[in-house]
Amino acid sequence: MGANFRSDNEAPVAPEIMAALAEANRGPAHSYGDDGLTARLKDLFRDVFETDLAVFPLVSGTAANALAVAQATPSYGAVICHQDSHMHTEECGAPEFYSGGSKLFALGGKDGKLDAVGVRERIASAGQVGDHASKPTLLSLTQATEFGTVYSLEEIRDLAKAAHEAGMRIHMDGARLANAASSLGCSPAEMTWRAGVDMVSFGATKNGAMMAEALLVFDPGLANELGRRRKQAGHLISKMRFVSAQLEAYLADDLWLRLASHANLMARRMCEGLEEIGGVDLLYPVQSNEIFVRMDRVLCDGLRAAGFEFHGWPDRSGVYRLVTSFCTEEEEVESILKALAVLDAA
Amino acid sequence: MGANFRSDNEAPVAPEIMAALAEANRGPAHSYGDDGLTARLKDLFRDVFETDLAVFPLVSGTAANALAVAQATPSYGAVICHQDSHMHTEECGAPEFYSGGSKLFALGGKDGKLDAVGVRERIASAGQVGDHASKPTLLSLTQATEFGTVYSLEEIRDLAKAAHEAGMRIHMDGARLANAASSLGCSPAEMTWRAGVDMVSFGATKNGAMMAEALLVFDPGLANELGRRRKQAGHLISKMRFVSAQLEAYLADDLWLRLASHANLMARRMCEGLEEIGGVDLLYPVQSNEIFVRMDRVLCDGLRAAGFEFHGWPDRSGVYRLVTSFCTEEEEVESILKALAVLDAA
Amino acid sequence: MGANFRSDNEAPVAPEIMAALAEANRGPAHSYGDDGLTARLKDLFRDVFETDLAVFPLVSGTAANALAVAQATPSYGAVICHQDSHMHTEECGAPEFYSGGSKLFALGGKDGKLDAVGVRERIASAGQVGDHASKPTLLSLTQATEFGTVYSLEEIRDLAKAAHEAGMRIHMDGARLANAASSLGCSPAEMTWRAGVDMVSFGATKNGAMMAEALLVFDPGLANELGRRRKQAGHLISKMRFVSAQLEAYLADDLWLRLASHANLMARRMCEGLEEIGGVDLLYPVQSNEIFVRMDRVLCDGLRAAGFEFHGWPDRSGVYRLVTSFCTEEEEVESILKALAVLDAA
Amino acid sequence: MGANFRSDNEAPVAPEIMAALAEANRGPAHSYGDDGLTARLKDLFRDVFETDLAVFPLVSGTAANALAVAQATPSYGAVICHQDSHMHTEECGAPEFYSGGSKLFALGGKDGKLDAVGVRERIASAGQVGDHASKPTLLSLTQATEFGTVYSLEEIRDLAKAAHEAGMRIHMDGARLANAASSLGCSPAEMTWRAGVDMVSFGATKNGAMMAEALLVFDPGLANELGRRRKQAGHLISKMRFVSAQLEAYLADDLWLRLASHANLMARRMCEGLEEIGGVDLLYPVQSNEIFVRMDRVLCDGLRAAGFEFHGWPDRSGVYRLVTSFCTEEEEVESILKALAVLDAA
Repeated sequence: MGANFRSDNEAPVAPEIMAALAEANRGPAHSYGDDGLTARLKDLFRDVFETDLAVFPLVSGTAANALAVAQATPSYGAVICHQDSHMHTEECGAPEFYSGGSKLFALGGKDGKLDAVGVRERIASAGQVGDHASKPTLLSLTQATEFGTVYSLEEIRDLAKAAHEAGMRIHMDGARLANAASSLGCSPAEMTWRAGVDMVSFGATKNGAMMAEALLVFDPGLANELGRRRKQAGHLISKMRFVSAQLEAYLADDLWLRLASHANLMARRMCEGLEEIGGVDLLYPVQSNEIFVRMDRVLCDGLRAAGFEFHGWPDRSGVYRLVTSFCTEEEEVESILKALAVLDAA
Repeated sequence: MGANFRSDNEAPVAPEIMAALAEANRGPAHSYGDDGLTARLKDLFRDVFETDLAVFPLVSGTAANALAVAQATPSYGAVICHQDSHMHTEECGAPEFYSGGSKLFALGGKDGKLDAVGVRERIASAGQVGDHASKPTLLSLTQATEFGTVYSLEEIRDLAKAAHEAGMRIHMDGARLANAASSLGCSPAEMTWRAGVDMVSFGATKNGAMMAEALLVFDPGLANELGRRRKQAGHLISKMRFVSAQLEAYLADDLWLRLASHANLMARRMCEGLEEIGGVDLLYPVQSNEIFVRMDRVLCDGLRAAGFEFHGWPDRSGVYRLVTSFCTEEEEVESILKALAVLDAA
Repeated sequence: MGANFRSDNEAPVAPEIMAALAEANRGPAHSYGDDGLTARLKDLFRDVFETDLAVFPLVSGTAANALAVAQATPSYGAVICHQDSHMHTEECGAPEFYSGGSKLFALGGKDGKLDAVGVRERIASAGQVGDHASKPTLLSLTQATEFGTVYSLEEIRDLAKAAHEAGMRIHMDGARLANAASSLGCSPAEMTWRAGVDMVSFGATKNGAMMAEALLVFDPGLANELGRRRKQAGHLISKMRFVSAQLEAYLADDLWLRLASHANLMARRMCEGLEEIGGVDLLYPVQSNEIFVRMDRVLCDGLRAAGFEFHGWPDRSGVYRLVTSFCTEEEEVESILKALAVLDAA
Repeated sequence: MGANFRSDNEAPVAPEIMAALAEANRGPAHSYGDDGLTARLKDLFRDVFETDLAVFPLVSGTAANALAVAQATPSYGAVICHQDSHMHTEECGAPEFYSGGSKLFALGGKDGKLDAVGVRERIASAGQVGDHASKPTLLSLTQATEFGTVYSLEEIRDLAKAAHEAGMRIHMDGARLANAASSLGCSPAEMTWRAGVDMVSFGATKNGAMMAEALLVFDPGLANELGRRRKQAGHLISKMRFVSAQLEAYLADDLWLRLASHANLMARRMCEGLEEIGGVDLLYPVQSNEIFVRMDRVLCDGLRAAGFEFHGWPDRSGVYRLVTSFCTEEEEVESILKALAVLDAA
């Protein structure tokens, strides 16, 4: 049979969200976000995050990240991020472009996570050459990380503290924020602003939306003129109600957490099954909906021949990524595990 | 009763396009445009435009325009455009931002149109100060224009010739291309590449799509690395099939022309009615789906009190714009005309 | 005999400044502005301008203007300036580039001067379309103007007030600040910060230096990280003492005002002579060291044949500019007047 | 007595260059490079480099590097360079800024040098993620390197080949090109275009000029509109003859090589002396005019107390850099060696 474990952004759109789009399509509405649906979205986010905040609906995670960077990073500034972060490796220089030429100070760190010691050292290092070095003004961390791991609340707090002490801002790339929140079992507030996070790229597309993200800004000063910046980047969607409708349905009745919990559960199942298979090594703790394995070419080829789709990881020979989504079915997980067991025994 | 004549981007989504979105939502598909729907879109555009071309699906017209500018305009370059063009007045500096600091050489011109004489003079003028002036590298014209007028094929050819002789490229902002094509009754090919146009911002959103535009590039060299530029701008939509599905439905069976013809017809009707009303002056020839009028404050207020919505035009006291769309109903037109007649008689 | 009236930047370097360079060349000194000469420059400027200020030595006026723009204008911002300002017409998009894509809102205005009414209208106009328009954040005025006229203190104050009321900053392009100060007979303080100016591009090159300008910032907040911006633009000169030495000599004993007074006096003389010549029309009040005339091609050709050099003005047929400098000699002025009288009588 | 070994850019200006400035100061000359001195400079460079080339006089090495990057690197492009290159660590993001948001792919490599294997791997790696990664379009190598080592001709050829095969351009940061040329004893042509280099930042300031560099471009296509880019960056010096005069004197009679040879010789002497001192470790082969040592804090403090000036290296505790220059005197070298011997024996 086979199944697609390539990426959660290859999944379709959740039925609740399709329904919301249809519902939003009754009659005309003011454009560029000046509609009722977009207006009430802010209240919804305020309830979910238990604080006042600015909400900027968007259609791509790269745009959310790049706008966040631009708000906090002048052309002579620098963003401290992980060397494997999406922002650094997969966004074709979007942060540098949006900020007019800033640098990304990319650091190593176990399991795809930054650590506060490394961050402090990098800040100190930049400080040694005065105007000759870009100034670190933003720390960006990814929750869940590229490798499917999840920062603990304490880790987030420590990182935020290190950055705030240096006068920097903290951004969280939450392309898979729902999976992380579900994994930690904490409130969105705890994982973000209460831990010191200033801005969040709140992703919905990978977890059941069609194209919907939001840049959330907890400090009003940091949101200053973000609307103009969004327009200048071509990201002010004229029929914005259709982005807002997705986000509204996504947040309503905890749909976002339910969808993510399912994806996480499927990853958990798969992880447990993989641990039984000799020819497969798990590379990172499985804490959300991504699983990284090392396996022999034979296993990989066999799975693909059987119709299972997944990505090899760039630059890392023999390493593969399996991603579950809100609509991954238990049978799909069992099916790939069974296929692997057979291949491994051969 | 009242009706919304504020903008065609306040209209809902055409049912055919909603159906296409639902249809595209069956099962997983490869992301970032590597899906079957997006692949076959290129053939569809090739058929419609009767030539080979590069197609970049997008979600905003500003992004389409700004990417086109960036492809043809280095930071030291300049775009010649009309002083009332959307690109110059309503996109918050998107072309300048995308190109890293180019200038827009904004010219006047009757009925919202550039004329070849003015374009030639501006090019000559820039040439007089060598490296001290930005170099005009792109001509951008809007079809239909901001004022609802439409360039004739001959006008386009003359402008393209003037620009090409100076080594420049020609871009057409086609946010309302369908309305213009329908108005001229010519083929898309005649109005674009056959007349000398190199790139088109092909708009669908204002004419019945949810959020779908495409940047079309007729010269392969000019499309070089546009994909990377799109990604860097955050405009590579991960679930791109849902943009492509809109465009496919939009082009299929000439839906785009049928929708635009209806909008144009409604504008035509309204124009004929307005000519009968003494207190209303039509400011431009009505050649697509926009009508600009000058009228007394009393008429304006009366209409608004009766539930009719429309925009006053920035910086031009007493000037108002009425826009029809694919779903404007004949009764809506009759209703506003009737209301005006009553107000005017009072 | 002939003489060069093309531009004051074609004049050589004043002997006092050459001497200062030789003097600065004794032994090693710390680089990048961390030298004693640069340190004491700040005090000198403070004395001249009677206030605390930040001083950034530079080597080009375009750099000074562009850095000033970048400090006060985000990518989504706009600069209000005169349509004939150097920044807009002769700097190849430097302000747009340095600011990452801002716009210049270029206004007309008599004698090369902005007027407060026009400025207020432009601000109001931009405010009508919200995030769709670039936000005016800086007003830039040129003192003396491109046409050799000089803003009165009252005019400066009015403009500054209009801009400050809108939350904007005020920049003065002072490529010929010395000529303006000498013309007005006022103190540098009166003409700048006391009149509401926040930043000055303080030019010395056109008035006797080799390559020396300074960006002066009166508000410490506005100077924030200007040092990093200067470095990122490649304008932190490693052997900066040689820029500072020029500026020190320029300011010492009012050399700058003496040099400018001479240039102005020569222009005055020439102006008086030109008024006697029938075939020559003076186009603007001669208030500094530039004279704009309209004259017949025959006169122009005759002068050039006699060895006099001067520029025709771009885009304005029959218009010529004559510039005097710190080293223009009285005989040169008399000589061109005599030549003109002969040609005119013929 | 003491001596300054902090940097060659803290040295004064060579007398021949001061004389050339005085000579250039006779009477007026056309501005912005349209003068006779600048015109003949091109011929001089052509003779020295034995090929036709484009020459852009500049006043800062950062500007030369950043302009070179901008010519070859679009916003979505990347520069491969060494992780310790000046461009990456000490120019505050100038390359990123000038190119509108490109990335620097910074690689490790022994003795401050890139190696072709690493370069090929990095290119291959970027190629794996398509439009999601910045595209490497330029290789930049520094000759002599930040650590005072010098690439052999073969190393340069290998690197250039690796980059050219991938369609990239090759830039050489020659802030200390003279020292490298003198060290290799090869012709400038051999070390640059004959080895595959497309552009050179030709430095003079560190080797006896006041503020003079030149960007040399061997391929005419690559020099296209570089003049406009220079102007837009504020680096078109109005009285350019004073930059050109420095470069002319610098090249005349091999002054540049004589000055560099002396600096290299002084470094050689110092190196030989240091090898005798137990408490001092030399970190890299001394191949030009920079010496990196590790030594105890006691030795460092003792030297400084005795009036010797030199830099500790950022981020590397216990590491110091000693730089000789064209005017370092033998007595200064002997004096620091003697002081060290005494301190080491204590």
